[in-house]
Amino acid sequence: MSKRKLRMGMIGGGKDAFIGAIHRIAANMDGQIELVCGALSMHPDVAIESGRMLFLPEDRTYTSYEEMFKAEAQMPADKRMDFVTIVTPNFAHFAPAMLALENGFNVVIEKPVTFTLDEAKQLKKKVEETGLMLLLTHTYSGYPMVKEARELVKAGALGKVRKIYVEYIQGWLSRLSEREGNAQAAWRTDPSKSGKSGCMGDIGTHAAHLAEYISGLKITQLNASLNTVVEGRMLDDDGAVLLRFEDNATGVLTASQIAAGEENALKIRVYGENGSLEWAQMEPNTLILKWLDKPSEILRAGSGYTDRLSSYATHNCRTPGGHPEGYLEAFGNLYRNFALALSAKIEGVEPEKEWLDFPGIEDGVRGMAFIDNVVASNQSNEKWTDYKI
Amino acid sequence: MSKRKLRMGMIGGGKDAFIGAIHRIAANMDGQIELVCGALSMHPDVAIESGRMLFLPEDRTYTSYEEMFKAEAQMPADKRMDFVTIVTPNFAHFAPAMLALENGFNVVIEKPVTFTLDEAKQLKKKVEETGLMLLLTHTYSGYPMVKEARELVKAGALGKVRKIYVEYIQGWLSRLSEREGNAQAAWRTDPSKSGKSGCMGDIGTHAAHLAEYISGLKITQLNASLNTVVEGRMLDDDGAVLLRFEDNATGVLTASQIAAGEENALKIRVYGENGSLEWAQMEPNTLILKWLDKPSEILRAGSGYTDRLSSYATHNCRTPGGHPEGYLEAFGNLYRNFALALSAKIEGVEPEKEWLDFPGIEDGVRGMAFIDNVVASNQSNEKWTDYKI
Amino acid sequence: MSKRKLRMGMIGGGKDAFIGAIHRIAANMDGQIELVCGALSMHPDVAIESGRMLFLPEDRTYTSYEEMFKAEAQMPADKRMDFVTIVTPNFAHFAPAMLALENGFNVVIEKPVTFTLDEAKQLKKKVEETGLMLLLTHTYSGYPMVKEARELVKAGALGKVRKIYVEYIQGWLSRLSEREGNAQAAWRTDPSKSGKSGCMGDIGTHAAHLAEYISGLKITQLNASLNTVVEGRMLDDDGAVLLRFEDNATGVLTASQIAAGEENALKIRVYGENGSLEWAQMEPNTLILKWLDKPSEILRAGSGYTDRLSSYATHNCRTPGGHPEGYLEAFGNLYRNFALALSAKIEGVEPEKEWLDFPGIEDGVRGMAFIDNVVASNQSNEKWTDYKI
Amino acid sequence: MSKRKLRMGMIGGGKDAFIGAIHRIAANMDGQIELVCGALSMHPDVAIESGRMLFLPEDRTYTSYEEMFKAEAQMPADKRMDFVTIVTPNFAHFAPAMLALENGFNVVIEKPVTFTLDEAKQLKKKVEETGLMLLLTHTYSGYPMVKEARELVKAGALGKVRKIYVEYIQGWLSRLSEREGNAQAAWRTDPSKSGKSGCMGDIGTHAAHLAEYISGLKITQLNASLNTVVEGRMLDDDGAVLLRFEDNATGVLTASQIAAGEENALKIRVYGENGSLEWAQMEPNTLILKWLDKPSEILRAGSGYTDRLSSYATHNCRTPGGHPEGYLEAFGNLYRNFALALSAKIEGVEPEKEWLDFPGIEDGVRGMAFIDNVVASNQSNEKWTDYKI
Repeated sequence: MSKRKLRMGMIGGGKDAFIGAIHRIAANMDGQIELVCGALSMHPDVAIESGRMLFLPEDRTYTSYEEMFKAEAQMPADKRMDFVTIVTPNFAHFAPAMLALENGFNVVIEKPVTFTLDEAKQLKKKVEETGLMLLLTHTYSGYPMVKEARELVKAGALGKVRKIYVEYIQGWLSRLSEREGNAQAAWRTDPSKSGKSGCMGDIGTHAAHLAEYISGLKITQLNASLNTVVEGRMLDDDGAVLLRFEDNATGVLTASQIAAGEENALKIRVYGENGSLEWAQMEPNTLILKWLDKPSEILRAGSGYTDRLSSYATHNCRTPGGHPEGYLEAFGNLYRNFALALSAKIEGVEPEKEWLDFPGIEDGVRGMAFIDNVVASNQSNEKWTDYKI
Repeated sequence: MSKRKLRMGMIGGGKDAFIGAIHRIAANMDGQIELVCGALSMHPDVAIESGRMLFLPEDRTYTSYEEMFKAEAQMPADKRMDFVTIVTPNFAHFAPAMLALENGFNVVIEKPVTFTLDEAKQLKKKVEETGLMLLLTHTYSGYPMVKEARELVKAGALGKVRKIYVEYIQGWLSRLSEREGNAQAAWRTDPSKSGKSGCMGDIGTHAAHLAEYISGLKITQLNASLNTVVEGRMLDDDGAVLLRFEDNATGVLTASQIAAGEENALKIRVYGENGSLEWAQMEPNTLILKWLDKPSEILRAGSGYTDRLSSYATHNCRTPGGHPEGYLEAFGNLYRNFALALSAKIEGVEPEKEWLDFPGIEDGVRGMAFIDNVVASNQSNEKWTDYKI
Repeated sequence: MSKRKLRMGMIGGGKDAFIGAIHRIAANMDGQIELVCGALSMHPDVAIESGRMLFLPEDRTYTSYEEMFKAEAQMPADKRMDFVTIVTPNFAHFAPAMLALENGFNVVIEKPVTFTLDEAKQLKKKVEETGLMLLLTHTYSGYPMVKEARELVKAGALGKVRKIYVEYIQGWLSRLSEREGNAQAAWRTDPSKSGKSGCMGDIGTHAAHLAEYISGLKITQLNASLNTVVEGRMLDDDGAVLLRFEDNATGVLTASQIAAGEENALKIRVYGENGSLEWAQMEPNTLILKWLDKPSEILRAGSGYTDRLSSYATHNCRTPGGHPEGYLEAFGNLYRNFALALSAKIEGVEPEKEWLDFPGIEDGVRGMAFIDNVVASNQSNEKWTDYKI
Repeated sequence: MSKRKLRMGMIGGGKDAFIGAIHRIAANMDGQIELVCGALSMHPDVAIESGRMLFLPEDRTYTSYEEMFKAEAQMPADKRMDFVTIVTPNFAHFAPAMLALENGFNVVIEKPVTFTLDEAKQLKKKVEETGLMLLLTHTYSGYPMVKEARELVKAGALGKVRKIYVEYIQGWLSRLSEREGNAQAAWRTDPSKSGKSGCMGDIGTHAAHLAEYISGLKITQLNASLNTVVEGRMLDDDGAVLLRFEDNATGVLTASQIAAGEENALKIRVYGENGSLEWAQMEPNTLILKWLDKPSEILRAGSGYTDRLSSYATHNCRTPGGHPEGYLEAFGNLYRNFALALSAKIEGVEPEKEWLDFPGIEDGVRGMAFIDNVVASNQSNEKWTDYKI
């Protein structure tokens, strides 16, 4: 067990921000982390009011991240923040992340990790140079049954993987909400803030990450077609990508934000020689196994047959079967594992292997490459585009 | 109401054949049709034994379809068969269908309608020349909630259609069953019997038909990638097709017969500006409507709120809500509508519009074109291939 | 295989009758039975018009069942009906059934078998005396996965049975429909036509039959509470019964026809020492097995793992997995098994054991006793009432 | 917004305790509460080690609750704990709760509130005398869609309530686990620790609370039958209760802990004149509405149609639709509302009505009365027992 709580700072995530609040719940949940400081907004008054709402001390409520790094770096080791969480829009990830690392702070960062692939590569180099830790919050890999899926594939339960279907379908951009005062919609559809892709950058990357995470196979070629369905929008809001993976597996990735009536429908199916698995984010505690020669099985997070579940599944679960854990707990798992691994490092203890299971800068680089490759394929008349990093 | 049962003959469908038995159940179900004769197998002894098992009179148990047409054509009008059902493998559809029409018999035919697109076009010409009726058994369009879906789209309930996902996923060809004595697998994977595509011809055509049937939109371009996953197989057993439809709608069609653990998972989702619909063949009495601005609704076949359901849904339903009707009833709906329309024609009565709602030779030509276009696109390095007929 | 179709007559079931049409579809479906005659209504003109709509010959369209039995009994053996189906309201079952048996005709009869328990006992005696066959259409025991459930319990898969929950919930009598021109509602809520119980007689008996059929345990005591919820109704439309079974198992049976919004929600759960099973009529091709020490399993009708399914499940299924069979097929299974058994008897052949698996007069007597016992318990202030026959 | 975090102490909940850890996650989640002290175990060494694991200061890690109240009461107001959470076994609730109130501390307490009904009444008196606040953690009433259900019933959406089915089914006591080293099982099946009922006290009370909470109707009479299914067990592990409510509604409550294969299957259905609602704890973000005259609707927590959802549903939700929130969030809602209301009181601010929506001592008294009445009815041969408090 850790000897003390880890101390977290936050950049972005002021009042009314969506994802910052999620990060704080995730960090709070397990009582291993405390928020000690923040540069919560570019607007000083918002930063200050947000700090007050979060019960931050006034002298650690900063109005810029530069100021925060400077002040915190000078604090004594038993008070200084241990890591910083960056929850600004995509275009404002890279600079604070680099500065954090340069000042010796570990980093938690929202995905996509940076604005461009090149930035991601630079950040990777910096992480390697500094030896500091970085957590990229690909939330969906935090679910226990996603981990179980990965372990089953790795153990060969399905046989050789042949086919992967992954879809991530939302409806919340069915209208031109970016012109109707929806702040989330505004920055996510603005190429100067979000990057060169909208839907594929925002959610297609989650789907691609999940497919590679569970299957253990890397995408090698893709055939993408993106659409901007809502008139007046500046970025893609829908698309589909045919995939080729290592070892002759193929796949289909669909992502949409104009699928009217859908909520947050991320779903993956992986087919092997002997059977298949199916997991859907909206019913996350269930992993369906379908077999060629025997009845389907329903694996459930937290269930009593712990001998059937991998240590990765049981470690990432807080309650017995039938007490549903959800999105916030999955998010919390990323933080908890990061915190356990970071505490172990700080205390010079050997980490459990399950603690090291969180997405990092490698996943970040790969996510940025996915965006680049999808956009390149979309612009090409050639059917297949090689996946380049 | 009809004045008499219609008289059916059958070509193929001898003992041990799968789809012939299904056709007979579908034709029997509603008591409007009686099987009066058959050329049930190319093998005379099988033909004769099969006739006996079906209680056919010996003198109407034929050993070739040529013989059957000749004999039946000479019978008096009040005894002669009214129509013939052709349930032989794909390569053996065209010749008996042409001969039937030439001898004045109406035709029911399994899909795909012929072996090649050219044959389909010839058959279409013959149907038009003779003025006879032809039913193509695209079963899935016989379900009441599929018809409801079509009517909802047609009435504009979803707004303009933007996106269509259709998938047809099976696992029964996950192994090289065609070499292990599975007769169904053997002919369906043999290009000399099945045609130029395996999976796309067998089930991809169903998916494409369903997408066009419900959306009312025609495919205009496609981007296909087919796979032969099981080593030693002669035709594709898996594939995906990105679709472009009229009116700027796009779609994704996936079909697989190597999706280990899947049964007969045909599912369609259609997204419009205001909402979407979802229907899955394995739970066919439910049509899910998801709305942008209000709670999802569950439409159920046979339900009491008949004012909410179209006449096409209620006409194709035999029981009240909660008494599940399934695949055989959907198949029966094709036969019932065909029989009602044919009886009306015979009796010189005006048919109800719901009776005329069954797939015919146009759908057959379009299905053969789909196969041709998918195979052509698969062979091309160009991303998009125009859909040609 | 049978040498000929069996010949069926029908009493009741004229045009506009609900259950008569269902019986005809069920009998037609498998091509083993033909309807040859009928006394389809008490009203001669309805009887005659109904016969014409069903393509019956005029001389075998009778206007009373007495006339039918007399005329048919005098026909030559190769023309005479083999059995008669009685689909009149409950109060009009006994007399034609007795007369049928006395005239040497086998009988198919809707449940509840008679109007009173005493009639049921007399009918049982007559069946035993004549040695004729009687099918009681407890439809739900015709489903393949219900049979699988029974076989699993019998084989001890769940261990000793401890608990049974069975519920049958409908909403169609939520209003006083019997006064609003609903003919079905009118006779089913009229004690002079339906008997001494409404809801419990109509659907509670199905639930009780299913519980005993699957568990193999008889009810020994009950604690019933019936309600007449809709004002002005003459019989119970809702109720619950606590059950004690043989071997210390207990259960809860709930039945309602005023559960607004429900369709035909019959569901059973059986709990044993090691695991449990769950089956719901509205998704009938699925049998869920839940285990104490391992993941739940989903057994599916028609699936490829035929070694896991009992011969009773596979025999009662027409199509491969994923081609949903429903209520009409379950009903058809009762007719098919009855027809196979009757044909075997006629032809002097040994029947397969699966053919003999259909409900008969014993189930009928037990169903009438259930009604009597429930009504007696409801009227008693004692908590528990012994189940008497 | 609150001006500071609330300070929480904890009695019980040392390492390896189940429900204590849950309470801490629930309290941590929203960053409104901090754990400042604890008497975490009766065993001093466990108490001390547990305190260390939770990062408590040594001088606020107490070895008895008496010591804790004494020490904390003497602390300055800006350091003293604001409330204490009691998570000891049932028999050890009353004494610390009374002492807490006597020392001016607000109380959070696990259900059932006390060991006996009499204690509950004394506690109620004390709460009223002191004017302090008490939260009883009937978790399931913390779910947003449970609150939505209650608001819908209250608004008359279903019409007059006629029927309530509520079931709470678990399988974890299918074996004699209390003799196999399961500490949870041991105290919960021990009448000297748990009280006069096992299953009904542990989970039946949750079901009864939920039924009354949603329907707004009080139970007036009951007809209970309890079973001790597993040989050697000292308390009931299974049971069913027929219910009569105010206003002529009736109900069925079933509870079991020997339902092998079930996890935590709490489910409620409420039927009114015009429609019904259904909610199941294992899929908690969905509320199904079934209507007599129109299609069923699916209400979803967090959905965009906020005008359709009550303020109670939206207030108790942290994320947009499709980001599943579960058991811990529901638990967190109890704490959050309690904390908001308590902070408002401390700060002299008018609370929002949604903050006051948490279970309290009235629910506690009623829960204890439910246990007494169920046990009394079970022991009686009379069918119906009046519900007494």
